[in-house]
Amino acid sequence: MLRVTPGERVALAALDPSATPGGPPDKAAALAATARLAEPLASLQERLYAASTAGDRRRVLLVLQGMDTSGKGGTVKHVIGHLNPSGCRVRAFKAPTEEERAHSFLWRIEKALPLPGEIGIFDRSHYEDVLVARVRELVPRERLEGRYARINRFEEALADDGVTLVKVFLHIGYEEQRARLLERLDNPDKHWKFSPGDVDDRAAWPAYRRAYELALERCSTAAPWYVVPSDRKWYRNWAVAKLLLEHLEAIGPQYPPGDFDVQECRERLLAT
Amino acid sequence: MLRVTPGERVALAALDPSATPGGPPDKAAALAATARLAEPLASLQERLYAASTAGDRRRVLLVLQGMDTSGKGGTVKHVIGHLNPSGCRVRAFKAPTEEERAHSFLWRIEKALPLPGEIGIFDRSHYEDVLVARVRELVPRERLEGRYARINRFEEALADDGVTLVKVFLHIGYEEQRARLLERLDNPDKHWKFSPGDVDDRAAWPAYRRAYELALERCSTAAPWYVVPSDRKWYRNWAVAKLLLEHLEAIGPQYPPGDFDVQECRERLLAT
Repeated sequence: MLRVTPGERVALAALDPSATPGGPPDKAAALAATARLAEPLASLQERLYAASTAGDRRRVLLVLQGMDTSGKGGTVKHVIGHLNPSGCRVRAFKAPTEEERAHSFLWRIEKALPLPGEIGIFDRSHYEDVLVARVRELVPRERLEGRYARINRFEEALADDGVTLVKVFLHIGYEEQRARLLERLDNPDKHWKFSPGDVDDRAAWPAYRRAYELALERCSTAAPWYVVPSDRKWYRNWAVAKLLLEHLEAIGPQYPPGDFDVQECRERLLAT
Repeated sequence: MLRVTPGERVALAALDPSATPGGPPDKAAALAATARLAEPLASLQERLYAASTAGDRRRVLLVLQGMDTSGKGGTVKHVIGHLNPSGCRVRAFKAPTEEERAHSFLWRIEKALPLPGEIGIFDRSHYEDVLVARVRELVPRERLEGRYARINRFEEALADDGVTLVKVFLHIGYEEQRARLLERLDNPDKHWKFSPGDVDDRAAWPAYRRAYELALERCSTAAPWYVVPSDRKWYRNWAVAKLLLEHLEAIGPQYPPGDFDVQECRERLLAT
């Protein structure tokens, strides 16, 4: 996967969405490797949560972005599904409500942030406000352009407050999206996931791709974007789990020591 | 497990917390049986969520109550861990903040309710306001007594709005609690879960038990309480998973039909 360096030029068309850079060689190996990540992930998550009970404010925020059908929901199911639900705060952002539109675009984001010790997961995020907002020209260009810097300042403030941001762009190909939409059409149990507008949106594919490139290029200062090739679901799940693990390891949370007299508590307890 | 009938007298001391009524005969069988519940649970959860996208307001709220160490957190980890995190809204209620205390005791509860299609999980709940509030005399007796009826009216309103309440009392024994607290004391990695006050609270065991009995007796009208013997974690997990499954089956959510022309969408998609 690609880690975007601040200021780097990103050309998504040049990145193969079916590649598996640095990953296991095939599906079977990837499923096994991903399963092996579950235990260390859960263990670090528990330490992160435990540390917060002693005042450690650190936490993680995984941001998932990508075109329709890129697998944001699938990633939550298969990667976050390995974690303890108690410590996860999952939020999917849809088109903003009237109340949300009346506030700054970051208002609803702030309300959904993970608390200390938690792992927050955003299925879509504040980036929609420079993606769909750009492609569909939902706001005047000047306001739109100012949002990149606002996002960077916002993310710097998050980092200062102990939030480790892991921003992942799930990169799928135009052909793969067609195949996935067809699969939804061909299975009545998946019709609820389909909207005719999904087909119309494909006409805007190059515009969305360009909007993503700009977001990735301009907003990798406070925390870098990772581009995860996502045509192969088994690679995508492994890569996101691995990224999450690496960031948790870098945080290195520790169980806090008890602030009580163990022997005295033990004696009192045994006397009950 | 016991399903409390409205008005029924509940004598917790007469219920064996190490019993396994209706459950698998031993740990191995229970682990296997619980694992077999994972697929149907996840499948029904997806249908419930899918139905909500077409306007179905139904949802589930699992309320977990029980003495310290009774396994509320463990149940979330082992039972809710089988579900898709996207559709779960987990909330643990601690001692109320100053802002929460300034509002009605149901204020923070309303804010944490599951949305249509979701499964909400409360680790402690509005019942704390007739449990710890009763035992520690945190409010005048008259206000306390009025809360039972308020809770019933609140839960009736939830039911009217499509919320299926599943209220579970995790019933552990006095000896088992001592053993679990000792285990926490003897493992430095678990000290963060221990507080010296946990030992003091054991002196109030009969008062808490009585407070639970009253809550179970008085608040089983809108939705019944289930008493799950919880000394054996494998039985507890199986029983809660089974209860959740039965309630989801009773809801019987269905994938909504698509409101679009499949053939037309298919042709347009293939033309892209």
